[in-house]
Amino acid sequence: MSEPSSPASLISTTADPGAEAVAELLGMLAYGELLAFERMASDARLAPDLDRRAVLSEMAAAEITNYQRLAARLAELGAEPQQVMTPYVQPLQAYHNRTEPRDWLEALTKAYVGDSVADDFFREVAAFLADRDRQLVLEVLHDSRYGEFAADEIRTAIAADPKLANRLSIWARRLMGEGLSQAQHVAAARPTLATLIITGAGDQDGVTALLRRLTSAHGARMNAVGLNN
Amino acid sequence: MSEPSSPASLISTTADPGAEAVAELLGMLAYGELLAFERMASDARLAPDLDRRAVLSEMAAAEITNYQRLAARLAELGAEPQQVMTPYVQPLQAYHNRTEPRDWLEALTKAYVGDSVADDFFREVAAFLADRDRQLVLEVLHDSRYGEFAADEIRTAIAADPKLANRLSIWARRLMGEGLSQAQHVAAARPTLATLIITGAGDQDGVTALLRRLTSAHGARMNAVGLNN
Repeated sequence: MSEPSSPASLISTTADPGAEAVAELLGMLAYGELLAFERMASDARLAPDLDRRAVLSEMAAAEITNYQRLAARLAELGAEPQQVMTPYVQPLQAYHNRTEPRDWLEALTKAYVGDSVADDFFREVAAFLADRDRQLVLEVLHDSRYGEFAADEIRTAIAADPKLANRLSIWARRLMGEGLSQAQHVAAARPTLATLIITGAGDQDGVTALLRRLTSAHGARMNAVGLNN
Repeated sequence: MSEPSSPASLISTTADPGAEAVAELLGMLAYGELLAFERMASDARLAPDLDRRAVLSEMAAAEITNYQRLAARLAELGAEPQQVMTPYVQPLQAYHNRTEPRDWLEALTKAYVGDSVADDFFREVAAFLADRDRQLVLEVLHDSRYGEFAADEIRTAIAADPKLANRLSIWARRLMGEGLSQAQHVAAARPTLATLIITGAGDQDGVTALLRRLTSAHGARMNAVGLNN
């Protein structure tokens, strides 16, 4: 805790012009962890047996540890976690309301498709941060084991019933469409954060290349579990 | 009071009638932890702000650590956690389906009233167990901070709006009625567990005295937050 600087001045006077943007980014990630926790805890109820239900609940609990690390870092930066998370409540809630899974496999596909794209995005943006925050973001992302678990379950389900692939592919495309729509709202509403990304990527071409990498990794992931893009 | 049995004999002697009862008890508690986790995670969505939502999510995650300790102990005892939890799924689900909270204060009252009675029950029964399992049960119960948090919130809400006391008192009585009804189903369906309790309490009078202690502590808790029994 640096005594002389008040929380507000810590952010505005630091040599790093991106401090506010960093708080916005960590705030988005922190809220994402809270939501991931809630979603996984809620998905656990759809699990076909108690073993899977327990596994999912344990993975959900791990997200809270991640949330706590991010909230602690935000406090260090002089930011109020609640305040920096608030702008993301509405768009992320809108995404989740429009993509409520109807069963276990839709829930897993949502986690596999949505969380992975979000993780890739944060991993890309982490490269634009100073050492310590980059490290924190990468460690928090690394801790998430839900994607792998979900991929195994989806692959096994499609192997047992190949007709599932079509329904889940349509579902996955809908998830991407709704996700992109909300991402555009966030980018438009958070110019500071958008600037961090454009500056980090170099220019508009850099951003386009970044988006292309996200799309291409998404396509590869879809193929890897037997879904088509 | 209770028939002394060493932890070693519980592990190695499958014929020991006490070992099966202990596994049944720990299985009930383990499933209770999973359900508490899910309920608190779900209650978090009803929280009026992000701070309370995060606090509740963090408390929920702590229940998973408790679950993991109980599951590890069950495995040591040679019991399959999924198997010993299964008998409690239906009655506990029935209780929760019949007592779905409609808002934040109903959710908190449910946690405060229901969890506290359950905790008292497990604390009483822990006294009938051998050292190691008694210690485990007491530690797991001690970790739960939701009750205190809920009590503070209920007290504050009633102080701000005294008319709430009546609605929440009716709600609390309904919770107790539904809880007792399911407890009777469990007792009838699990004679081994029922025997552990009767033997531990000494006789039927001992059980009656135990129930009287639970009821009296419940009444005191109701009064402590401004609810009437």
